[in-house]
Amino acid sequence: MLNIRIEKATTLKEKPDPNQLGFGNIFTDHMFIMDYEEGKGWIDPRIVPYQDVVLAPSAMVFHYGQEMFEGLKAYRTKSDEILLFRPEMNIKRTNTTNQRICIPQVNEADVLQAIKAIVEVDKDWVPSLPGTSLYIRPFIIATDPFLGVRPANMYKLMIILSPVGAYYKEGMNPVKIWVETEYVRAVKGGVGFAKTGANYAASLKAQMKAKEKGYTQVLWLDGVERKYIEEVGTMNVFFKIDGEIITPSLEGSILPGVTRDSVIQLLKDWNMKVSERKLSIDDLYLAHEEGRLEEVFGTGTAAVISPVGLLDWDGRQLTVNNGEIGPVARKLYDTITGVQCGTIEDTYNWTVKVNQ
Amino acid sequence: MLNIRIEKATTLKEKPDPNQLGFGNIFTDHMFIMDYEEGKGWIDPRIVPYQDVVLAPSAMVFHYGQEMFEGLKAYRTKSDEILLFRPEMNIKRTNTTNQRICIPQVNEADVLQAIKAIVEVDKDWVPSLPGTSLYIRPFIIATDPFLGVRPANMYKLMIILSPVGAYYKEGMNPVKIWVETEYVRAVKGGVGFAKTGANYAASLKAQMKAKEKGYTQVLWLDGVERKYIEEVGTMNVFFKIDGEIITPSLEGSILPGVTRDSVIQLLKDWNMKVSERKLSIDDLYLAHEEGRLEEVFGTGTAAVISPVGLLDWDGRQLTVNNGEIGPVARKLYDTITGVQCGTIEDTYNWTVKVNQ
Ligand SMILES: Cc1ncc(COP(=O)(O)O)c(C=O)c1O
Ligand SMILES: Cc1ncc(COP(=O)(O)O)c(C=O)c1O
Repeated sequence: MLNIRIEKATTLKEKPDPNQLGFGNIFTDHMFIMDYEEGKGWIDPRIVPYQDVVLAPSAMVFHYGQEMFEGLKAYRTKSDEILLFRPEMNIKRTNTTNQRICIPQVNEADVLQAIKAIVEVDKDWVPSLPGTSLYIRPFIIATDPFLGVRPANMYKLMIILSPVGAYYKEGMNPVKIWVETEYVRAVKGGVGFAKTGANYAASLKAQMKAKEKGYTQVLWLDGVERKYIEEVGTMNVFFKIDGEIITPSLEGSILPGVTRDSVIQLLKDWNMKVSERKLSIDDLYLAHEEGRLEEVFGTGTAAVISPVGLLDWDGRQLTVNNGEIGPVARKLYDTITGVQCGTIEDTYNWTVKVNQ
Repeated sequence: MLNIRIEKATTLKEKPDPNQLGFGNIFTDHMFIMDYEEGKGWIDPRIVPYQDVVLAPSAMVFHYGQEMFEGLKAYRTKSDEILLFRPEMNIKRTNTTNQRICIPQVNEADVLQAIKAIVEVDKDWVPSLPGTSLYIRPFIIATDPFLGVRPANMYKLMIILSPVGAYYKEGMNPVKIWVETEYVRAVKGGVGFAKTGANYAASLKAQMKAKEKGYTQVLWLDGVERKYIEEVGTMNVFFKIDGEIITPSLEGSILPGVTRDSVIQLLKDWNMKVSERKLSIDDLYLAHEEGRLEEVFGTGTAAVISPVGLLDWDGRQLTVNNGEIGPVARKLYDTITGVQCGTIEDTYNWTVKVNQ
């Protein structure tokens, strides 16, 4: 159990118009901070007014990218409960990430307590309009003022909160995706499975290229054979072919998504055939040519489910399901968002209440 | 030409004992800062007292690793001139890195001017003992207070300075190197050729493993076939086999070192056979077995030349040149360090004077 010191803000910010919320540009009144020092462990857990981070220019995070983050959401139910969705999975992934990039492990119960505590303090910031939520961003940075390349001895874990708008303002909309064949995001043996800055910095170039060409996101291929499908931007990806629902297996280069895991569990319980395995881009295009490709969708915390309407692979355009949302994507979206905001019974115990 | 505003520190720090200098833990009295804003470009170049960096917790650099750095040195000559070694190569590499991770390009002449100006202001910090120098660390970080994954619109370029001790305090010493077969540093299509945090964060785990086993650094193999030699920790690597000096060719996954380039030029001028090409770890071990491996050494700004005395590849230990420094490594070290500190004529125009 953390003994969290709480210092309340003396003046509170004005809340934004819930109809105008975007993503990740507005922050709440408070934040959680906890320091790590070699030999002392994680110390001084505190909730303080949202404030700037003050670091030496030599702080390791600025130079060697030793940093990690997580992303999850708090939802307000009709009865004004505040629910988190599977937060223990994000916290577990924190430790998986930390392990790979040599950040000390966190106590998982403590971090859950911290998340609940900071959301509780800023609970008035959890919006209630359909589709809106409070985005929770825990992150850790290396702070030693030292230029040698080695794991740091000092870190800061912070949790900041940002009210976010509905992802689909005008209804769910299938997206156009660019299949990237030049740049690589991650490779087995690297850090692709970890939620760390490196993967996102490496992804920007291809993402910009895709945007310029009019596509929403990038579909990554594996870095070794350059043919197996990995994931989409900040989403995992699923394909329905011949009735089988396929998603790339977790072999070290893709992020093990919380939404991905939830989707797999639901599909299994619905008695659908779901396989975690390799799928090559050639086989995908072949399936489409033969009329066997039924649906494609991405999964992630931001959009929950994002149907894919079109893929472009070196100029070969493939239209999925006539550019329309498929029934599996629709059912998954309705089920997961229903559980998240408390309108569908949570038979899996996926949600965690913030306030009792 | 930058119009650099200079704000001098009112009290100066005490200079450290030049015999006790380490690496990257002591910083000078001043630093250079320049901001970037979308639409305005690089603005407000200034030299200010060395000071903390103040950023929003949502600053992009903390989350998505959009950051780059360079490393070069200033040397004091016997006649009290201060020399930089090929700074224009570091600045060119800055733009190569920036291009890959979507940081705006810098004006190369401006950055050279900035480096000279900040070193000039803190010139009393350039130590004079043999082997000591002033390490120069330019770096750029993304500062937008925004959690969306996209290239930032705001950056800070900073230059900080750190007096560093002689790398070889008790004479040049061959190092023991661990050949890494589990973890991968970078892959073609990724960011391996760029000097960005991602590569260093990804390298920490293997480096820790090597250290624990008693090795100084890691020799990386390629991420695709897992057999071609790439580079060593923060150095490029050279092998002398049958009279031919081989260094891995630049194919996107290794850093194009300034020292590497200088070594290649010198070897060519000495009429030695030097090849930039692929070399597999099997071929290296075979050459050793057949008595054809003569020398192995790393090259980088920190050590200049670092002879390798032993390699360990999955328990197969290979001793190079009886663990002794080879003649090529020795001659390269003496020549480059001689040019750097002004005792050998600079026939290549590699050095740039800071003060006239
Ligand atoms: C690279 C990447 N893949 C997949 C995901 C989806 O993961 P989750 O469902 O846990 O949000 C994310 C977003 O978190 C991501 O950044
Ligand atoms: C990964 C890596 N490779 C090679 C080098 C050597 O490059 P340089 O000779 O420019 O110092 C460095 C250090 O700068 C490095 O970080």
